[in-house]
Amino acid sequence: MDRTPVWFMRQAGRYLKEYRELRVKYSLLELCRNPELATEVTLQPLRRFDLDAAIIFADILLPLPGIGVDFEFAAGEGPKIHRPLRSPSQIASLAVGEPEDSLRFVLEAIGMVRRELPRQVALIGFAGAPFTLASYMIEGGYSRSFLRTKKMMYLHPNSWRVLMEILVEVTVRYLKAQIAAGAQAVQLFDSWVGALGADDYRQYAMPYSSMIFESLKDQSVPTIHFSTGTAGYLELLKEAGGTVQSVDWRIPIHLAWERVGTDTAIQGNLEPIALMAPPDVLERKVLDILKQVDGRPGHIFNLGHGFLPQTPVESVSAIVECVHEYSHS
Amino acid sequence: MDRTPVWFMRQAGRYLKEYRELRVKYSLLELCRNPELATEVTLQPLRRFDLDAAIIFADILLPLPGIGVDFEFAAGEGPKIHRPLRSPSQIASLAVGEPEDSLRFVLEAIGMVRRELPRQVALIGFAGAPFTLASYMIEGGYSRSFLRTKKMMYLHPNSWRVLMEILVEVTVRYLKAQIAAGAQAVQLFDSWVGALGADDYRQYAMPYSSMIFESLKDQSVPTIHFSTGTAGYLELLKEAGGTVQSVDWRIPIHLAWERVGTDTAIQGNLEPIALMAPPDVLERKVLDILKQVDGRPGHIFNLGHGFLPQTPVESVSAIVECVHEYSHS
Repeated sequence: MDRTPVWFMRQAGRYLKEYRELRVKYSLLELCRNPELATEVTLQPLRRFDLDAAIIFADILLPLPGIGVDFEFAAGEGPKIHRPLRSPSQIASLAVGEPEDSLRFVLEAIGMVRRELPRQVALIGFAGAPFTLASYMIEGGYSRSFLRTKKMMYLHPNSWRVLMEILVEVTVRYLKAQIAAGAQAVQLFDSWVGALGADDYRQYAMPYSSMIFESLKDQSVPTIHFSTGTAGYLELLKEAGGTVQSVDWRIPIHLAWERVGTDTAIQGNLEPIALMAPPDVLERKVLDILKQVDGRPGHIFNLGHGFLPQTPVESVSAIVECVHEYSHS
Repeated sequence: MDRTPVWFMRQAGRYLKEYRELRVKYSLLELCRNPELATEVTLQPLRRFDLDAAIIFADILLPLPGIGVDFEFAAGEGPKIHRPLRSPSQIASLAVGEPEDSLRFVLEAIGMVRRELPRQVALIGFAGAPFTLASYMIEGGYSRSFLRTKKMMYLHPNSWRVLMEILVEVTVRYLKAQIAAGAQAVQLFDSWVGALGADDYRQYAMPYSSMIFESLKDQSVPTIHFSTGTAGYLELLKEAGGTVQSVDWRIPIHLAWERVGTDTAIQGNLEPIALMAPPDVLERKVLDILKQVDGRPGHIFNLGHGFLPQTPVESVSAIVECVHEYSHS
């Protein structure tokens, strides 16, 4: 049996000393926008851990300035959109732009990482899904209630559609360019779509995610569909598309797999805070996931969401070893 | 056929002008701690809408000072625990206290409301579930990640158990006292338990919620078990107890009912932000829920979580009328 592949969301990041050292000199956006630095950061976790994939160091919000929406990362507070989209007229002023040009630094970094990576390690590209990107652009940052986003959907459905169609086109072009540059798989992050009920997902988000997966069908790479909090309507996520569904820890992985069907691979689903648990608790949680999967092919071991900055490096090594050992036994 | 009962979480609150007028003069805690004022606030929505239940105006954190944990509501920021529980020694210093005495103002308000309510309107009492209360006490307020709470569970399981057992005893005594004072149903709010995976729920939260429902079995009132974000393991919530399961909008209500079984009544599950939608969108959403329920007895129409302060009063009237009309047709 092949060993279960393992990689982690935010495997390059603040939990690594060598990353924090770079962050003393460069901002997050400076790291993203400099291909040499982005390459270095992407490769950092690969030097420490026996990971089966690298994910290009970037951020889902990078395409926003090209559309006409500027933002920054405020220290310790996450992203801050300078002028959040609060009116139909603001949405009407947006444009698709030229993502292949305005995001060239990501494409260059992909090429550079690809040349440095060992053959057996896959390089994953990614983008934010339309709903999640729209929610940042409308709320202005992270939101608990998504009140403004939902009001835009309900009160201005035409503007919502215009915004989502722009995001679809940008995302398709961006992901195709990433694949052309060397990405061997791409992940679509719909991190906040779990705020929607099933009907709203079907009406306001799913059609646009579907368009993206549909447009990528002629590309010969796997597509990973990431979401959290969607245990109530996983079938719809599967229907929207993706050769792999990435699920969070809020649903047992074997039940998630029953719901999406055995023709779909599944990625997940360790709780990120489990890495702060004592070694025996962490190991039990990793083994529980592997036992639930029960050797079924098509499982990619990962977290249900990204690493927290407080993650101890030893826990990461322990998981990688445990997954590889177990799946070889 | 009897009409579908309808009430709303946070039906007394800031979306009502008459409530905001009182809040100019009194803080939230002053309103809660004065039985006459709490009675007035509890009755306010009943004067406007043809609701089938009143819920006593109170807050799930009110029992905390009696246990040894002080807090306040910082303006616009939600609850702020003065000295969050960050160490086992802090937990060791807590005590059950005398909830029947320290929360006498709630019990008095229940008696007063009961005397004023028409016979056909039920009065609902409530308390926070142990996991949700513990998370506030440990995090110090609302949390996105529940990092400190989960670390306490994983790293100090004995202290966690001590804390949860104190909360069980306080909650059982508090809810029994509410029932003795005139509450005709009680709701246990496990608002944040959806942050846990199924295994963690089973190990760290469910046993304590179960103890509470078990202890209330000899009381002759319905018990409502409220949670959000638990679509991945609703069966466990049902197993923990409650004659009614209250589910949020992240799972279609007919699928939720299949999962918890037809021997359990179900409450829910309109998206609170739907009340900000245009009348036709709101009506469609209300009718969708009623159609999914399909006349099955044991449905209580409610939201999936509480009203937001921005809720328009006209939307509330529209829902109440729509539910009563539909279920009479």
